[in-house]
Amino acid sequence: MSKTVFAYSKDRFMGQKIESLKDALEFRDHSVVWVNIDGFDHLSELKEVFGFHDAVFKAIVRSKGRVKAMMFEDYLFLLLYQIYELSGGLKREKTAIFLKDNFVITMQERAGDVFNPIRESIRKGEGLFREKGADYLVFALLDAIIENYIPMLERISSRMEELESKILKGDDEETLRRIHRIRREILFMRRTIFPLLEAFRKLEIDGRRFFEQETREYLDELHEHIMEVLEVVESHREMANGLIEMYYSTISMKTNEIIRILTVVSTIFIPLTFITGIYGMNFHYMPELGWRYGYFASLTGMLLIALGMLYYFRKKGWL
Amino acid sequence: MSKTVFAYSKDRFMGQKIESLKDALEFRDHSVVWVNIDGFDHLSELKEVFGFHDAVFKAIVRSKGRVKAMMFEDYLFLLLYQIYELSGGLKREKTAIFLKDNFVITMQERAGDVFNPIRESIRKGEGLFREKGADYLVFALLDAIIENYIPMLERISSRMEELESKILKGDDEETLRRIHRIRREILFMRRTIFPLLEAFRKLEIDGRRFFEQETREYLDELHEHIMEVLEVVESHREMANGLIEMYYSTISMKTNEIIRILTVVSTIFIPLTFITGIYGMNFHYMPELGWRYGYFASLTGMLLIALGMLYYFRKKGWL
Amino acid sequence: MSKTVFAYSKDRFMGQKIESLKDALEFRDHSVVWVNIDGFDHLSELKEVFGFHDAVFKAIVRSKGRVKAMMFEDYLFLLLYQIYELSGGLKREKTAIFLKDNFVITMQERAGDVFNPIRESIRKGEGLFREKGADYLVFALLDAIIENYIPMLERISSRMEELESKILKGDDEETLRRIHRIRREILFMRRTIFPLLEAFRKLEIDGRRFFEQETREYLDELHEHIMEVLEVVESHREMANGLIEMYYSTISMKTNEIIRILTVVSTIFIPLTFITGIYGMNFHYMPELGWRYGYFASLTGMLLIALGMLYYFRKKGWL
Amino acid sequence: MSKTVFAYSKDRFMGQKIESLKDALEFRDHSVVWVNIDGFDHLSELKEVFGFHDAVFKAIVRSKGRVKAMMFEDYLFLLLYQIYELSGGLKREKTAIFLKDNFVITMQERAGDVFNPIRESIRKGEGLFREKGADYLVFALLDAIIENYIPMLERISSRMEELESKILKGDDEETLRRIHRIRREILFMRRTIFPLLEAFRKLEIDGRRFFEQETREYLDELHEHIMEVLEVVESHREMANGLIEMYYSTISMKTNEIIRILTVVSTIFIPLTFITGIYGMNFHYMPELGWRYGYFASLTGMLLIALGMLYYFRKKGWL
Amino acid sequence: MSKTVFAYSKDRFMGQKIESLKDALEFRDHSVVWVNIDGFDHLSELKEVFGFHDAVFKAIVRSKGRVKAMMFEDYLFLLLYQIYELSGGLKREKTAIFLKDNFVITMQERAGDVFNPIRESIRKGEGLFREKGADYLVFALLDAIIENYIPMLERISSRMEELESKILKGDDEETLRRIHRIRREILFMRRTIFPLLEAFRKLEIDGRRFFEQETREYLDELHEHIMEVLEVVESHREMANGLIEMYYSTISMKTNEIIRILTVVSTIFIPLTFITGIYGMNFHYMPELGWRYGYFASLTGMLLIALGMLYYFRKKGWL
Repeated sequence: MSKTVFAYSKDRFMGQKIESLKDALEFRDHSVVWVNIDGFDHLSELKEVFGFHDAVFKAIVRSKGRVKAMMFEDYLFLLLYQIYELSGGLKREKTAIFLKDNFVITMQERAGDVFNPIRESIRKGEGLFREKGADYLVFALLDAIIENYIPMLERISSRMEELESKILKGDDEETLRRIHRIRREILFMRRTIFPLLEAFRKLEIDGRRFFEQETREYLDELHEHIMEVLEVVESHREMANGLIEMYYSTISMKTNEIIRILTVVSTIFIPLTFITGIYGMNFHYMPELGWRYGYFASLTGMLLIALGMLYYFRKKGWL
Repeated sequence: MSKTVFAYSKDRFMGQKIESLKDALEFRDHSVVWVNIDGFDHLSELKEVFGFHDAVFKAIVRSKGRVKAMMFEDYLFLLLYQIYELSGGLKREKTAIFLKDNFVITMQERAGDVFNPIRESIRKGEGLFREKGADYLVFALLDAIIENYIPMLERISSRMEELESKILKGDDEETLRRIHRIRREILFMRRTIFPLLEAFRKLEIDGRRFFEQETREYLDELHEHIMEVLEVVESHREMANGLIEMYYSTISMKTNEIIRILTVVSTIFIPLTFITGIYGMNFHYMPELGWRYGYFASLTGMLLIALGMLYYFRKKGWL
Repeated sequence: MSKTVFAYSKDRFMGQKIESLKDALEFRDHSVVWVNIDGFDHLSELKEVFGFHDAVFKAIVRSKGRVKAMMFEDYLFLLLYQIYELSGGLKREKTAIFLKDNFVITMQERAGDVFNPIRESIRKGEGLFREKGADYLVFALLDAIIENYIPMLERISSRMEELESKILKGDDEETLRRIHRIRREILFMRRTIFPLLEAFRKLEIDGRRFFEQETREYLDELHEHIMEVLEVVESHREMANGLIEMYYSTISMKTNEIIRILTVVSTIFIPLTFITGIYGMNFHYMPELGWRYGYFASLTGMLLIALGMLYYFRKKGWL
Repeated sequence: MSKTVFAYSKDRFMGQKIESLKDALEFRDHSVVWVNIDGFDHLSELKEVFGFHDAVFKAIVRSKGRVKAMMFEDYLFLLLYQIYELSGGLKREKTAIFLKDNFVITMQERAGDVFNPIRESIRKGEGLFREKGADYLVFALLDAIIENYIPMLERISSRMEELESKILKGDDEETLRRIHRIRREILFMRRTIFPLLEAFRKLEIDGRRFFEQETREYLDELHEHIMEVLEVVESHREMANGLIEMYYSTISMKTNEIIRILTVVSTIFIPLTFITGIYGMNFHYMPELGWRYGYFASLTGMLLIALGMLYYFRKKGWL
Repeated sequence: MSKTVFAYSKDRFMGQKIESLKDALEFRDHSVVWVNIDGFDHLSELKEVFGFHDAVFKAIVRSKGRVKAMMFEDYLFLLLYQIYELSGGLKREKTAIFLKDNFVITMQERAGDVFNPIRESIRKGEGLFREKGADYLVFALLDAIIENYIPMLERISSRMEELESKILKGDDEETLRRIHRIRREILFMRRTIFPLLEAFRKLEIDGRRFFEQETREYLDELHEHIMEVLEVVESHREMANGLIEMYYSTISMKTNEIIRILTVVSTIFIPLTFITGIYGMNFHYMPELGWRYGYFASLTGMLLIALGMLYYFRKKGWL
C-alpha cells in the first residue's frame, strides 16, 4: 500500500514515503529515481502520471506466472516473479518493473525483502549504484530476483536426496506423493525461469536502447546465468524422474522377494504334505505301514527331499 | 441465419438486422461497421459483396480445428475456434473474422454469446471502442474468444483434482477411462491454442499494416497471454500424465498387498499342515503317538513355529 | 502405358491419346496442355522432348516415399504420393508432376482415378480451370492428391474406435498386433504428409515465379490445410498410444483379479484344512476327539473362521 | 598402401599406380585427375604436395564417425564413412575426399570396392564422367557411398521381421539381446547418416563455388535422398521400439497365463482337499461316517463343487 | 596461488614465476605472453591490471558448470570446465581464459596438468606455437581441455560394458543404483559439453576478429570435434537407457521363472494330495480300501496324473 521514493545521484541520496505518485516527479533532477509501490492497487494512478499503455496493465492483471518484457517508445516494462516458500509449498509473487528515463518504478504484492540489500547498498553508497544510471538499477533488481531462485532449487535438491534414501530403505505410502509434489515444484520453477530466456532475448534485441553498453554486459552475464540455472532445473527434473524409476523398481523388487518366499515354502512343503497324505490313506493293505522303521524311513525321505529342494533353490540364487 | 450490423463512430451508434449483406455497405460512413452473420450459409453472398478470395472460403469449409490467419492486399481473414462444453464434452465452433477498411465481418455457427459483452460496451459507449478503429474491434474479438478458453481449462483442472483424490482412495474401473478422456480434452485444447501462436506471428509480420501502433501493443500483450495459456495447458498435460502414473502405481501397490497376504497365510499354514500330515500317517510304529502329551506337544510346537513366522514377517515389514 | 493429352483454352477443349510425347507439342497453342502418362517407362523420352535434368529422373527412380519439390530455371518438378488401401493395408503410389510454361505433365504408376474429377471439370468447363493457367491446374492436382488422404485418416480413426471398445471388453490375442498395425499406418501417413510441409515451403520461396499471385493464395490455403491434416495425424498417434496404454492396463487389471481370487480362496481354505489336519492326527490321547459334540464344534469353529475371513476381504474391497 | 591415378578427359583416359604423390601432378593437363590412396599413412606427403591445412589432418586423425565438410579457399575437404558388415556387426570405414581444381584425391582404410563401378564407368567411357569435370566425380563418389547404406538398412529390416515372428512364437532368452543389438545398429546408422545433412547444407552454402550449376542439381537430389534414407532409419527405429514393446507384452501375457492356471487348479482342489480333511478327522462321533452311502455322497458333492468351479471359470473366460 | 609467465616469440622463450600481475606487462614485447594463475583469488588484481569488465568476474564467481564465452571490445573471455575423476566420481574444475592483444591469461582451481604438454611444446619449440600468435595458443588450450573429455567418456563406456554383463548374470541389488550413477555422470558430461557448441557459435560470429583466418580453421575443426564428442555422449545415454531396460526385463524374467516353478509344483501336487485326502477319509463303507491292490492302484493312478501334468507343462514350454 505504501509508496516510497529512493532518489540518488553520485553525491546525494534521498529516501522517503510519498502520498501520491505525482510527488515522485519532483525528484526528477536526481540521476536515478526509484519509486517502489507495494501492491497493485494504484494502476490507474500510474497510468495517469507516467502515461503507460493500457496493454501493460492488462498484462499485469491477467498474468499467470509467465515473465513478460514489453518495450515501448520511451519506456520499458518487465513483469517478473519472485518465488518464495509458504507452508511447505512454493508460491510466486508478481513484480513489475518500469524503466522510463531516469525513473525506475517497481510494484510487488508483498513488501519485498529481496530488494532490501539493494536499498542498503544505495543508502550506504556501496557498489556501483551511485555511479551508474537507472538502467543499472534495473539490472540489479533483475539480478536480485533471479539470484533468489537458487536457494529454492537447493532446497528442492536436498529434499530429493532425503527422498532417495527413504526410497532405498522402504516404501511408506507417502513417498510417491512426495516425489510427485517435488516434480510439480520443479516444473513450477521451470515455468517461471524458462520464459526469462525469451524476455532477455527480447531485451537484447528490442530493448537495447534502454541500456548502456556497460550495463548490457551485465545483462549478458545474467542471461548466461539464467541458462545455467535452467540447466540446474533440468538436471533436477532428470533426478526426479530417476527417483520415480527407483521407486517403482523398489516395489517390483519387493514383490519379487515376496513371491520368491511363497514359492520356496510352497514347493518344499507341498510335495512333503503329499507324502504324508499317502501314508495317511486308509487302505487295508499298505505294506510300508507295517515295517518296523517305516515311519523313520519316511521322515528321512522327506528330510532328504527338503534338503534337495533347498540345495536347488540356493543354486538358483533364491535363498 | 440472421445478419446484424453494428455501426458506430465517436458520437453515434446504430445496430439493426439486415436482409442482404449489400445493405451493410450503406453504413460505411461510420468509423466502424461490424457485420455479424450467424451460420456459414452466406459465403457466396459475402464473396460477391466484399470480393474476398476463393481460398478463404475453401479454408472455412475444410477447416478441422486449426486457427488460420490469411492476409490479402486490402483485407485480413482470421479463422478461430470458440470452445464450449456440451453434455460433458468439449466442442469447438468455427468463427471467421474479416477486416476490410472500416468493416469487420464476423461469422459463427451458433449465435455467439462470447461477443455480447463487446456489443454491450459499444452500445453503452464504454471502453475504448468508440474512440478506436476497426482494428481495435478485431483485437477485442480475438481477446474475447481467447479469454474464454480460461474457464474451460479451470474446469479441467478441478476435474483432475477430483480424480486424483479418487485414485488415492481406490480404483473404480471408470478411473482410467476418465483420465484418458481428460487427457484427450487437454490435447484438444492444446491443438486449438497452439496454432494461435503461429497465426499471431503471421499477424505481426505480414499483418502489421492492418493495425495501428496502439492496437499492435494490445495484440502483443494478447500474444504473450496465449503463450501463458499454452503453458497452463502444458502443465495440465504433465498433471494428467502424473495421474496415470499414480493410477498404475496404486494398482501395483494393491497387487503387492494381495500377494503379500497370500504369502503370509500360505507360508504360515503350509508347514503346519505338513506337521499334522505327519501325525496323521498310519504307520504302525510311531512312538510319538503313544506319548501322554504328544498331542499337546505337537500343538505347542506348531504354535511356536507360527509365532516365529509372524515375527519374521513383522521384521520384514510385511505385517 | 497410355499417354493422353488434355489441351484447353478459355473457349476450346481437346482430349486425345497420343503415341509419342512429341505429338503433345503440337497443342502448345492452347493455354494449358496437360499430358498424362501412365507408368514410369517413358523417362528417357520425356527427357528428350522436354529437356528435363537427369537429377529429376534419379529422384523418381530412387524415391522411397518422400515428397520432393525441385525447381529448375524454366520448369518445376514435384514428386508426390497417392495413398490408397489395398487388401487391408495402406500402399503408396508415386505421382510426378512437371510444370513447364503452359505444359503440365503428370506421371503415375496406376491409371489414377484421383484426377478424374478434375478431368471432368475441365471437360465440362466447370470450376475455374478454363479461366486460369497451368499453375492453377498444378494446384488442383496437388489439392486432389492431398484431399484424398482424409478418407484414409478417417478409416484409421474408425478402426481405432472399434479397437477401443474391443479392448474394454476383453483381450483377444490379436488386439496388440492390431494396435501396432494401426500405429504403423499412422506413421506411414505421417511420413507421407510431413515432408509436404517442406516441399511447400520450398515452393513458396524458390518456386514463387511459377505461380501467379491468385494461385499462390490457393497454395497458401493448401499449405495450411496440410498442417491441419498433419495435426489430425498427430492426434491419431496420441490416440494409438492411449490404446496401447489402455490395453496394458486391462491386462494388469485382469492379472490383479486372478491373483485376488487365488488369494481369497487360498487364505480361507488353507487354515481350515490345517484344522482338519489337527483332528486327523492319530495321537492316542486327544481329548477333543471323545467329546460328544466335538465334531460339530469343530465344524462351527471352521465356519466362523471362514465367515470372519470373508468379512475381512469384503472390508478390503476384494469381494 | 598403394596410390593410383585415374586421369581422363573427354577423349582420353589413363590409369596407373604411382610411387610418390608428386607424380600425380604430371597428369594435370587432363580434365580430371583422380588420385586414390589406400590407407591414411601418407598424410604428411599429401600436405606437402597439395598444401592442405593442418586442421584437415587433425580432423582425419581424430574422427569418430561424424561426417565432416570443410571448405577452404581453393579446395574442399570431405570426410565420410562407408558402412560394411563384418562378422555379423556393422563397421565403418573412414573415407576422405579432396577436391582441388581438377584434382580429386580420395583416401580410405581398405582398398574400397564401393568405387569400383565408378572406375569401370570411367574406363569404359560410360555415363557422364568423361564429359563432366572433377565436381561431378566428387558427386558420384558421394552418391556411391551413400547408396551403399541402403542394403545395410534392408538387412536390418529383414532381421527385424525375423525377430518379430520369433517374438510372436515365444521368448527364447536371446531375443531381447538381439533387439537391443538391432537398435544399436540402427542408432549407428543414424549417427552416420544424420550429420550428412549438415555437411550437405554446408556444401550448398559455403561450397557452392566448387560445383557447377549442373552438378549442384545432382547434389540437391542426393541431399533429398539422404533425408529419405534418414526417414527409413527413423521408421526402423520406431519398429525396433515396437518390437521391444511386443516382447514385453508377450512376457506379461505369459505370466498371466501361468498365474491363471495356478489359480484355476488351486481354487478347485484346495476346497475339495478341505472336505476330505473333514472326513479324515478322528472324532469319535461323526454321524456321516456311518452312513451307507456317505462316501459316495461326499464324492458326488465334491464333483459338483468342481463342476461349479469349472463353470464359473469358463464364464470368466479363464478356460 | 602461484602466478607464472610464459613469454615467447619465434626465436626466444622465457618462463618464470611472478609476484604481481603487473610484472607480466614487462614481457609484452614477446609475440605471446601467457600468464597462468592458480586459483581464483586474484580477481581484483586482474581487473586492475588488465581492466576487465566486472561482469566477467561475476560470471566466474557464480558459474555452476556452464561454459561461457564473452566478447568485449578488445578482449575475449572464456570460462570452461575441466573434468577429472575423484574418488570414483566425476568432478569439474573451472578454467578461465582471457585473450587480450598478445596476452593470454589462464586461471584454474588446481594447478592444471592438462596444459603441461602445451608448456612442454612451447619450451622445446615443438609444434606451431612459436610461429603463431596468441590466438593459436587459445585454440590449443581449448583443444587440450576438450580432448581431455575423451578418456572420461571411455571410462564410462567400459563401466557400462561391465554392468551389462553383470545384469545378464543376475541382479545384485547394487546394479540399479550403479546404472543411475552412470546415467547421472553421462548427463554431467552432457551438461558440460553441450554449451560448448553455443560458445563456439558465439566465437565464430562475434569473436571472429580475435582469430586469424588460419586459426579459425582450427577452431572450426574443434567445433566439429565437439559435436562428435557430444554424439558419443548421446550414444552413451542411449546405452544407459538400454541398460535400465535390460535390467527391468531381467527382473521380470526372473519373477516369471519363479512363478512358473510355483505353478508347476502346485498344480502337480495339489490334485495328488486331494486324492490321498480321499482315501484318508474315515467313512465306514469305502469299497476301494478293502481291495487287495487298492493302494498300489491309487499310487499308479497318481503317478499317471503326475506324468500327464509333466507332459502338459513340457508341451507348454514351461519345463
